[in-house]
Amino acid sequence: MDRQESDFDALFKPKNVAVVGASNTFGKIGGATLAAILSGEYRGEIYPVNPNENEVLGLKTCPNITSIPGDIDLVVITVPAATALEVLKECEKKGVKACIMITAGFKEVGGEGEKMQNEISEIGRRSGIKIVGPNCMGVYSASSNLIAIMSPVNPNKGNIAMVSQSGTLGMVLMDTISKTGAGFTKFVSSGNEAVLKLEDYLEYYREDPEAEVVVAFIEGVREGKRFVKIARELTKRKPLIAIKAGKTKAGGEAAHSHTSSIAGSIQVFRSVAKQTGITLAENSDELVDYATAFSKSPLPKGRRVGILSGAGGWAVLSADACEEHGLKVPELPADVVNRINELAPSYWSHRNPIDLVSSLDINLFKFCGEILFEENVVDALLYAYIAYDFSSSFDSLAKISSFSEEEIDMFKKGSRWFMENLAESASSINEKYGKPVFFVTRDSEVYNVLRSSRVPVFGSPIRAVKCIAKMVEYREYLERNMKAEK
Amino acid sequence: MDRQESDFDALFKPKNVAVVGASNTFGKIGGATLAAILSGEYRGEIYPVNPNENEVLGLKTCPNITSIPGDIDLVVITVPAATALEVLKECEKKGVKACIMITAGFKEVGGEGEKMQNEISEIGRRSGIKIVGPNCMGVYSASSNLIAIMSPVNPNKGNIAMVSQSGTLGMVLMDTISKTGAGFTKFVSSGNEAVLKLEDYLEYYREDPEAEVVVAFIEGVREGKRFVKIARELTKRKPLIAIKAGKTKAGGEAAHSHTSSIAGSIQVFRSVAKQTGITLAENSDELVDYATAFSKSPLPKGRRVGILSGAGGWAVLSADACEEHGLKVPELPADVVNRINELAPSYWSHRNPIDLVSSLDINLFKFCGEILFEENVVDALLYAYIAYDFSSSFDSLAKISSFSEEEIDMFKKGSRWFMENLAESASSINEKYGKPVFFVTRDSEVYNVLRSSRVPVFGSPIRAVKCIAKMVEYREYLERNMKAEK
Repeated sequence: MDRQESDFDALFKPKNVAVVGASNTFGKIGGATLAAILSGEYRGEIYPVNPNENEVLGLKTCPNITSIPGDIDLVVITVPAATALEVLKECEKKGVKACIMITAGFKEVGGEGEKMQNEISEIGRRSGIKIVGPNCMGVYSASSNLIAIMSPVNPNKGNIAMVSQSGTLGMVLMDTISKTGAGFTKFVSSGNEAVLKLEDYLEYYREDPEAEVVVAFIEGVREGKRFVKIARELTKRKPLIAIKAGKTKAGGEAAHSHTSSIAGSIQVFRSVAKQTGITLAENSDELVDYATAFSKSPLPKGRRVGILSGAGGWAVLSADACEEHGLKVPELPADVVNRINELAPSYWSHRNPIDLVSSLDINLFKFCGEILFEENVVDALLYAYIAYDFSSSFDSLAKISSFSEEEIDMFKKGSRWFMENLAESASSINEKYGKPVFFVTRDSEVYNVLRSSRVPVFGSPIRAVKCIAKMVEYREYLERNMKAEK
Repeated sequence: MDRQESDFDALFKPKNVAVVGASNTFGKIGGATLAAILSGEYRGEIYPVNPNENEVLGLKTCPNITSIPGDIDLVVITVPAATALEVLKECEKKGVKACIMITAGFKEVGGEGEKMQNEISEIGRRSGIKIVGPNCMGVYSASSNLIAIMSPVNPNKGNIAMVSQSGTLGMVLMDTISKTGAGFTKFVSSGNEAVLKLEDYLEYYREDPEAEVVVAFIEGVREGKRFVKIARELTKRKPLIAIKAGKTKAGGEAAHSHTSSIAGSIQVFRSVAKQTGITLAENSDELVDYATAFSKSPLPKGRRVGILSGAGGWAVLSADACEEHGLKVPELPADVVNRINELAPSYWSHRNPIDLVSSLDINLFKFCGEILFEENVVDALLYAYIAYDFSSSFDSLAKISSFSEEEIDMFKKGSRWFMENLAESASSINEKYGKPVFFVTRDSEVYNVLRSSRVPVFGSPIRAVKCIAKMVEYREYLERNMKAEK
C-alpha cells in the first residue's frame, strides 16, 4: 500500500505537470486542458509539450517528454490515440509516475483501438505508472489547485472525493453539488479504466484523510469481490454515496455494458449496497442531494425530526415526507408546549410540526428550535419556511403610485433582514448543539447565508427529508456493524 | 348550473371590487390586499371601505358597503372575525354577488369562531352569495387582472386553473410553476370552505373553457361521492393534477384532519385517483413538474421515447428513467441508422439514445429529432444535453493572461448561440409535428429560449421522464374510457 499511495500522490499532488498536445487553440482538447490547469492556478511547474510551437498560452514549450529537464510526476496526454500510445511509452522510459490519458479512440471504438488499450494496460502493469483513462475528462485535486480536466470547471474546495465512470455527467454533478456550497477534495473521471479502476480510486479515498465523503458514479463494476471488500471497509470510516447508471435494459445498452460486472443487475447492486453500507442514489437529483447533505451536516443520532414552519401546507408536506421515509415526527412533551405558550402567539400549532403561522419573531423561532434539542425531543431539526423569494415579492408594488421607492426598498430590506436572521438562527442552532439542521425554502437570501454553513438547504420538503432518512440509515448501519464486531 | 355560473362570474370576472378593511399600512392584511389588487392593474372599479380614512393608497374610501353607490359584484373582507360577519350580513342586504373572506379566526380556532363560521355557511345557503374562505389567501383571475390576494404575487397568465386548501403553499406552487413559463387563468385559496368547497371550484373549472389544466392541492375532501363524480367528468375533458397533503398520521394531524373525508386514507385516495383519471402527485416537486408539462406540452400518443444527447451519462440516466417508469426506448430501424450515418460523425452511438457526443452541428441534432417523428419511431422526444451553464463555464479563463477579454467573450457568445439554436430546434420540431418534445439541461439559455414555448425544461432526466410517463397514463385512461363508452 505504501508504494501505491506515493504513486497516487504523483497524480493528486504532483510537483509538476506536462501537457502533451498543449495548444493555443482553446477549441482543441490540449488547449482547453492547459487553459483549465492555468485557470485553476496550479501550484507546481507546468510543461506544455508541442513540437510545432515555441510558446503556448504564454508558457515555453518542450518538443517532447524526453526533453523536459528533471523528473516528471504527472503527464496529461491529449494527442490522438496512436500518438498517445507512443507518448505513454516515452513516459515509461522517462520514469514518469502518473499519466492522465484524456485521448479517446481506444476500446470504445473496438478493433485497433482495443488492441492499443491492451498495450496501455500492459504498460501500466509492468511500469507501475498510475494511468487514468484513456477516454476520460481528467482529474481535479484541491490541495494542489490542479484542474487537469479537458473543460474549464470551478468546483468548490471541500471534503468530497468523487470518481465517475461518466466524464461529462461527473463534471455536471460536481458543478451542481458545488453550487449548493458543498465542495471537493478530489475528482477523477476514470474513462475506459485500462489500468486504474473504480476499485483503485475507492481504495485510495478510503485511506485519504482529506476525503470525508466519497461519491461514485458507476456504470459497471469490473472487480466485483474487491469492490464489495473495499466498499465494506470504506463505509466503516466514511459514507460512500453511489449511483448505478445503466440499471435497465435500455440504460445498460446505452452504457455499452461492461464485462465481468457484478452490476449487471440492479437488484444485485441494491443488495450489495445494503450489505456494505453504501448510500444508493436512484437518480442524479438524489446523488446531488445526498452528497450535499453528507458533506455538510453531522449525522442524526435517531429518527425523530422536529419541523419548524410558518406555513401550514409546507409543514404538512414535511410531516408526510418524514413518515413516508420512516422518520418520526414526535409529539411535544406538555412541558415544552407550555414553555412555547409563554412566548408564542396563541394561534401557534401547539404540536410538532411547530407552525408559528405569520410570526416574524426570530427569537421565537430560535427558542423553539433550541428547546427541541435542549429537551432531547428530536434528533434533527427541519426549518420549512417562506417558500418563495420573499424580498422580490415586493417588486410589483412599484406599479402603485402611492408607494415611494424608499418605502418599497424598506419592505425589501425588512424581508431580507428577516430571512437572513432566520437562516442564521438555523446555523447557530446547528453549531450550538452539533446536531443536524436542514432548511427548506425557495428564498435566495437563505441560500446565500447558509452556503458555507453546515445547514443544507433544499427547495422542497421531500428532498430534505430523503437526505435525513438516508443519513439515519447509514448511522444505523454503522451501529449494527460496531455491535457485530464486538 | 346557469345561476351558479353567473355568480362565479362575479367572483372571477367582477365589474367592481370593494375591499373592506383597506388600509394605507402595507403590514395590515387590508393594506396588502388592496396593494395586490392595484399592482395587478385590475380592470374594474375599486372601492376601498374604511370608516376612519378618507383616502387609501390614492383612492377615495367609502365608510361601509351600504354607502357604495350601485350594485357590487365582489367584496373582499379583511377585518377581524366578528366585524367580518357583520360585513357579510351587510353584503347580503346590499345584494352583493360574491365575497372573499380572507379574515381568520373561525372554525380553526373552535368555540365562538366555529359558531360564527356556521353563520357564514347559513348566510351562504340562504343568500346564494358565492363565499370564498374564511381564513384564506384570496383569489386570482387572469382575464380581469384580478389579484385579490393578501400578499402581492405575480403569476404568469396561462391555461392552469388551481384550487388550494393550503393558502401559502398554494401561492408558492403558483409562483414556482409560473417561473417555468407555464401560467394561470384562475387560482383560489379555499380556506375553511364554509360555503364554497373544493368540489364547487372543480365543477366550475370543469365547465370553464379558459381552464385547460386543473390543479388541486387537497388536504381533505368533504363531499366524497360528489368529488368522485366531478373528477370523473372533469378528466374526460381536461387533466386534473392533484396532491393529497396529510397522507400520513403525522401529516394528517398537522393538517387538523377534516371531518367526513374520503381522503382519510391515502390508499383510498390513490385508488380514487386511478379510477377517475386524476394525475396524482406524491410530493410538491411532482405537482410543479406535472402542472408545467401538462400545461405546455401536447400528450404523447404512446410510450416510445427518443433520447437525443451529447453526453453519454445523461443519455444512460434518461434511458434508465424511461424504462423504470414504463416507457420504451425503441431500437432505431436500420434505415434510420443509415440516414443518420450519412450526416453524423462516425463515433455517434448508432442507437437510441442517439448520442452525438461532442457534435456542435445544430442541423444534425434537428435532423435526428425530426427523423424519429417523421418515420414514426417514437411518440415523444427528449433532449438531454449540456447539463451545466455552458457559457458561464468560460468565466474562469479570465484568470489566464493570454486570453483577451474579447476572446473569452467570443467563446461565451459562441456557446450561447449554440444553446439558443439547440433550444430553438427543440421548439421547432415540437411545432412542426405537434408532438411532445422535452428538454433536460441546466443551461440557463435554454430555459430563457423555451420559457414561452411548448417544450418543458427540467434540470434532471428523472423529472422530465416522470412527466412523460404521467401524460401517457392519462392518455391511456382517456382511450380506455372512450372505448368503454362506445
